[in-house]
Order: sequence, then structure tokens, then C-alpha cells
Amino acid sequence: MELKARIMGHLLVVSLALNLGFVYRDYSIGKHRQAEDYLGNENECKNSCRVAKRDAHYVEKAVLEDRSSALDDEVIDLDLGDPTMYEKYWKQMGDKTTVVIPGWRFISYFSDVKNICFFLESELADAIVRLHKLVGNAVTQGRSIVVGTGSTQLIQALFYATSPANSSEPVSVVSAAPYYSAYPSFANYLKSGLYEWGGNAHKFKGNKPYIEIVTSPNNPDGSLREAVVKNKQAGILIHDLAYYWPQYTSISSPADHDIMLFTVSKCTGHAGTRLGWALIKDEEIAKKMTEFMVINTIGASKESQVRGAKILQAVADSHENNRGSTKSEESNSFFEHSFNLMAHRWKILSNAVNQGNIFSLPQFPSGECSFSRRTFATQPAFAWLKCEGEIDDCERFLRKHKIISKGGNYFGDSPKYTRISVLPRHHVFENLVHRLSTISSS
Amino acid sequence: MELKARIMGHLLVVSLALNLGFVYRDYSIGKHRQAEDYLGNENECKNSCRVAKRDAHYVEKAVLEDRSSALDDEVIDLDLGDPTMYEKYWKQMGDKTTVVIPGWRFISYFSDVKNICFFLESELADAIVRLHKLVGNAVTQGRSIVVGTGSTQLIQALFYATSPANSSEPVSVVSAAPYYSAYPSFANYLKSGLYEWGGNAHKFKGNKPYIEIVTSPNNPDGSLREAVVKNKQAGILIHDLAYYWPQYTSISSPADHDIMLFTVSKCTGHAGTRLGWALIKDEEIAKKMTEFMVINTIGASKESQVRGAKILQAVADSHENNRGSTKSEESNSFFEHSFNLMAHRWKILSNAVNQGNIFSLPQFPSGECSFSRRTFATQPAFAWLKCEGEIDDCERFLRKHKIISKGGNYFGDSPKYTRISVLPRHHVFENLVHRLSTISSS
Repeated sequence: MELKARIMGHLLVVSLALNLGFVYRDYSIGKHRQAEDYLGNENECKNSCRVAKRDAHYVEKAVLEDRSSALDDEVIDLDLGDPTMYEKYWKQMGDKTTVVIPGWRFISYFSDVKNICFFLESELADAIVRLHKLVGNAVTQGRSIVVGTGSTQLIQALFYATSPANSSEPVSVVSAAPYYSAYPSFANYLKSGLYEWGGNAHKFKGNKPYIEIVTSPNNPDGSLREAVVKNKQAGILIHDLAYYWPQYTSISSPADHDIMLFTVSKCTGHAGTRLGWALIKDEEIAKKMTEFMVINTIGASKESQVRGAKILQAVADSHENNRGSTKSEESNSFFEHSFNLMAHRWKILSNAVNQGNIFSLPQFPSGECSFSRRTFATQPAFAWLKCEGEIDDCERFLRKHKIISKGGNYFGDSPKYTRISVLPRHHVFENLVHRLSTISSS
Repeated sequence: MELKARIMGHLLVVSLALNLGFVYRDYSIGKHRQAEDYLGNENECKNSCRVAKRDAHYVEKAVLEDRSSALDDEVIDLDLGDPTMYEKYWKQMGDKTTVVIPGWRFISYFSDVKNICFFLESELADAIVRLHKLVGNAVTQGRSIVVGTGSTQLIQALFYATSPANSSEPVSVVSAAPYYSAYPSFANYLKSGLYEWGGNAHKFKGNKPYIEIVTSPNNPDGSLREAVVKNKQAGILIHDLAYYWPQYTSISSPADHDIMLFTVSKCTGHAGTRLGWALIKDEEIAKKMTEFMVINTIGASKESQVRGAKILQAVADSHENNRGSTKSEESNSFFEHSFNLMAHRWKILSNAVNQGNIFSLPQFPSGECSFSRRTFATQPAFAWLKCEGEIDDCERFLRKHKIISKGGNYFGDSPKYTRISVLPRHHVFENLVHRLSTISSS
């Protein structure tokens, strides 16, 4: 029960992230910005939203002090990994990825009745296989594809599909700390009798069944990972490979695990499309996931699927069509463009952070990428910032400087760490770097 | 535990429906059809799929006997409510509802941060409000709109949002029999500690908290319903109004309940779009539903939302633009067209059934529709067929005649009843009527 109680705190994390604070909106190119708060109804707060209230306090304070437009006074909200960085690239691509859907399409629940996942549009399946083959980041042969409303839904489908039938107690879902802050919520919010959050995989003991989520590169800290609990007979491994794409990390070899998860949100940036896919070796698991998908939502939006297909095909096209082109044309290829952007962002971010002794960032080993033939170190979608010295709560410290991040405690780690998204729009990122630089050098 | 065991049977219902049997595909207009089976891996069947195996047996037998194209030998699968009837109308509408989505849209998770449901596209919200106002079937004023991946997801969001906090035992979810066969699955498949299926609302006793689903018109039997358990203090009412549209029933007045559910699947027929919406009076419930939606899928597909918006606006346009037009133009208005289609189908279906004493159909009272000003009796999306006399299992009886339906036991009722979809494509419906007519008059 103590575990459960502790976990209930986690339940708020995703919700909190989205209820919290400020979201910036451009009203014209880089000129006018408006911070809008979405704090919910504070008067009717219960225990569970105390954290939100505390956060709201800082945010409100930050805003009320001065709403003038000077860079230093803007609240920079990088608590969530909203991948708006990618918007500019897709605007540049013009109508190459424009999707046209006539009114009579998608009347039926069915897409392909011969497929285990009968609501999977075959054009999406084709695009997924083509892209993995091109990038070389995952084996698709001998796998069933199950599509979902983001990998968020698919990971829950996997809990359902892999938890032992007729067990008297819920199976433990574990992941090595620091782990993605939403995993505990996924496992606990419905108080399922099938599965429950079991915490840090490093601390998991006993010979009982478990599900371990291996996230690589990891959210929040960007590390490359392998399973921690080594008990093949009792364990199910879910490999969450949302960030295993060549703009974030070097592709060492095609991932060949039994259960692998991907999502367009982090691959191409289309988070609003809510589209993820699972590559599943065991047909029985794919069937059980499909069963979950049917009971949970009767499949996944076919509009998102055909749009996802078009976008993934455009990504593959951008590489295959630019082969042997000039360097400037090549730099329009999606992963080339995104790699360069991430490399630039990490360079200026590291410079800003390294100006003083207040902050530090993780160090990543270099590897040769089989896709780009470059040798480079991981440049993750999040910065896992550590506050050095006497600063015990890095999230709180940054908040005083009007930077909203997500503290280490949400990830099962020390509050000396905090997670900052590296994927916002250009001006927000520039502002972040400026702010961190000012703090570092002060 | 006995209840739980009984319910586990229900868990299969949706899955079963979709794994089962045959789906017809047109290869040219009404000429060639192919029955494709999607039976899953029978060899590895566990207890839970015994029903599927039994069904599969009948279906296979039916097919293997004769694959020739004579009408009498075709397997007619109307087990599911796949609303393919509507496809023809939308084809006739040409490009009026064609949606064009450029590649840069929907990068962000957010749609409207000022809205409780921050992932709701404002153009969908506008379309929903406009259509309800035009049809007069629901009050939208003073309600929050929460959008979901079909009303299937929203009903689960409601279980989460309305189950009592910190209760020591799960709240009972009940509905009057015959109830929609998927409700027990929704409530039980994750063995939630928050809520569980409590069965037929008529048999619910005690002064403990409960959630009652009131489906009106009802699936499967088309009846107009009110709450059965009258205990305002302990109960939460969910009004599932998926079929409260003027092609199915007369609109008596705008529904004014605290919690109302709608879906495009049954309103316009776009089942593959997976789009539903809830109208919620209590802001705290809307917030908690949004929290569920975030943890379950981080919102709902924005592609589906903008497409849904376009389609709902086209439905409203088709009525407002045709006001005062000629009768033939008016008959192109969506609800007018769909009403006429349903009226025709029910007329020929009733004639076929009433030729003998083998079958009977429910009788519905007539009412004046405030939208169309017509007086008519409900003409539901499903026929709730009863086998009279000595036939104890109506689903089984029909299966011998190669009609796949869903037996009364799935709906908490007698196997003397079975549910047949009235919404398939034209040729399938014609074939059904022909087949029933032959059986009735034999």
C-alpha cells in the first residue's frame, strides 16, 4: 500500500505536465508571444493537485512580476517534449506531404482483414517497413505490426498482452531509474489487477514474473540501455525505441528485440497525429494487443495512419531522391536536416552550460552510425541537467529563473537533476540558451 | 468471483466480433464478392476462444459447402455494426467533405490551451455545437466537450473520472439488459480496482455507489430508455446517445443530462475515423476525463478531429442550404437521406420477417420529431430479432442459414434473441432480406 500511495503521486505527472503553466504561441514570426496559463481550478484542489498548486505559484509569480517582453522575463516552458522544432522543416517541404482524404473514406472499422491487426492501413505498414529498412534501426521481418494512438497506448496494450493470465497478483512493471516519468502512471492509474508499477529495475528482486521497459536512447537522460533484470524465464522485455533514430543517436545495428515500440512524435515530430507502432515477434502477443486496442478504442484513427504513411514515405523519399546530390540538396533530407539541427542545438547548449560550475550535462560515448556513416555522440531530445554544488532542487532553481522543467524526482532520481526539452521552436530554444548562459556565467 | 468468471466470457465479445468469420469486400459493383476469413490461430486456442472456434466451425462449414455465387449460399455477416451503408451517400457528395492537411500541421500535442480538453481542435468543437443546435438533440450550453478515440474510449474515461476516490472496492458499472455487449468488457478487461461490471441494472441492489449507463435508443433493441436504478445520491448516470439522431428515432427534445456521449460512427457513419465526444456539465469530471485521455493516449488524433469537423459541418450545411429547396434537393440533406434509407430498410425487413411465425421484431411507439416534423417510430441501427416457438438459440438458427448475428446472451438476455446490423452495404442488406423472407415463408 505504501508503494501504491507513493505511486499515486506519479499519476499526476502527465496530467500535471499538461495542466501546468504556460504554453507559448506565436502570433507572428518571432515577434509577439503570449503566455497563456492553464492552471485548472485551484479553489477546488484536492491533495492530489498540491504539486500543481506549488508549480502554479511559481509560474504566476514569474508572470505577475513583469509581463514586459524583454527576453529575460519570458517564461520558458520546456517541461514537456512537445517537438515543435520540426514544424519549420515540414513547412519548407511544401505540399510534398499534403494529404487529401475524400469524404467517403474510412467508413468501415476494417482496414485489412487478413492482418492480425485488422485496423492497420496497409499503406502505413508499407511505409514503416520501408523506413526501418532504409535507416537500418530495426528488423521488421518476421514481425507483426500493431498500430496505436501513440506508443503510449501500445505500451498499455503490451501490459495487457504480456501480463500472466490467471495470476493471483499483478505483475510488476519496472524500468531502470531514471525512467520516463509517465511509466508509473501507465501502470497504476486504473489500479489494474493485471499489472502494477514495480519501480526502479535496479532494485527489483525475486524470481517472480515482471515486465521490464528498456528505453534506448533513454528518456530523460539519453543513455543507451540494455535490460537490467536478467531473468529471461520470468521477464518480458519491452524495448521503447522512440528515440532510436539517426538525428538523436548513431544507429549501431538493426534492433532485433521481440517487442519494439516506435512513434511518429519523436521520429518526424508529428505529436498531434498520435501515431505509434509496435513490432512484435510473437503472434499471440500481437493478437492480444489487438484485442486490447479493440476494447480500448476499436483500433486507431485511419486518418492519422494515412497521414503517417505519407510522412514516413516522404522521409524515405527525401533520402533516396537526394542520393548523390549536392551537399545543399542532401541537407534537405529529413534525418540529415534534423541531425544538423540537433548537433547545433547541443553545441550551443553545452557551451552555455559549461560556462560556469553551476550545471553539468551527461557525457555520451561516440559511435559510428551505420545510416549516416558519421561518428558522433548521442544528442538526445532532452537535456538531463544536473545542478552542481549546493543546489538541491534543480527544477526549483530553474523555476526561479523562469525556466519550467521536470525535476529528477518524477523520473525516480534525485532532484539535483531536471529534464529540459531540446525540441521547442527556434526562438524558445535560443531564449533558453541565453538564459542558461546568463545563469552559468553569473 | 463467480461474477468475475461470468464476465470474463464477455471480455471476448468485441474481440470475437472482430476476429470472427467473414467480411465482405466488393471488387466491382455488386458483382464479385469475396468472403475472407480472419479466424486467428485456432490450433493455439485457449478456453477463452472456444466460442470463436464454435462460430468458426459454422462459418467454415457454410463456406466449404459451396463457394458458388448464388445468393442463397453467401455468408451474410451482420454480427458487427459496421456502418458501411453510409459510404454511398458520401461518395455522392463528391468533394464537399474532402479534407486537405498540409505536412506541417499537428506537430504539437496542444490544440487550445484555454480549453479544459486542451487537445480538442476548436473547429471540431464549433461543428459539434452547431450540429446539436440544428438537430436539437442535445444541450451544449454550459457543457465542456471532451473528445476521444470513439465513444468507446470516452466511456472508459468516464469510469475513471467518476469512480469514487479512495474507495476500498470498485464501483459497480450497470446497465439494463439487454445492454450493449461491449460494456462488460470495458469495465472488466483490466481488472481495475476502481470499477467493475455489475451486470443488469434491473437487478442492482443496495445503497452503494454505482455508475449506470443509459443507452437511448438502446443497442441492441432500439428502445428509448431512462435510468433504472433510482438513487441520485449514490449513482452516476452516463447517457450513451450514440443513436439519438433523426435517421434512427424521433427527436423529442434536446437531451439535457449531466454526462452525454456521441460518436461520428453512428451519426455520419465514419467508424474508421474513431471519433467521439462527451458533453459534460461538471468541470471536475471533464478535467478528470482529460487526465485519463492524457495517460491513455495523450489526447486524440487531430487528423480525425479536423475531418470530423468538416463532415459535421457538411451535414449541417446540407440541411441549411437545402431549406425551401425542391423535394429532390432536400432529399440530399444528410438526415433526410439517411432517414429515408432507414425507413425503407425497416419496411422491407419487417415485411420479410412478418411473412411467417418464425421471427418477431420489437414494436416501437411513434413520436413527433422536432427536427423533421415527421411522426414516426424508432428505426434502429440494429434489428433485435426474436426466434419464436421452439427455436431456443436464434443466433445458431440463423447461422445454419449462413447469417452471422450476435446472440442475446452477449447482451445479458435470452438466446431466443439475436442482434443483426441494419447498416451494411446495399447488396448485403438486400441479401439478408431475401434470406429472412425465404426462411419465414418456408
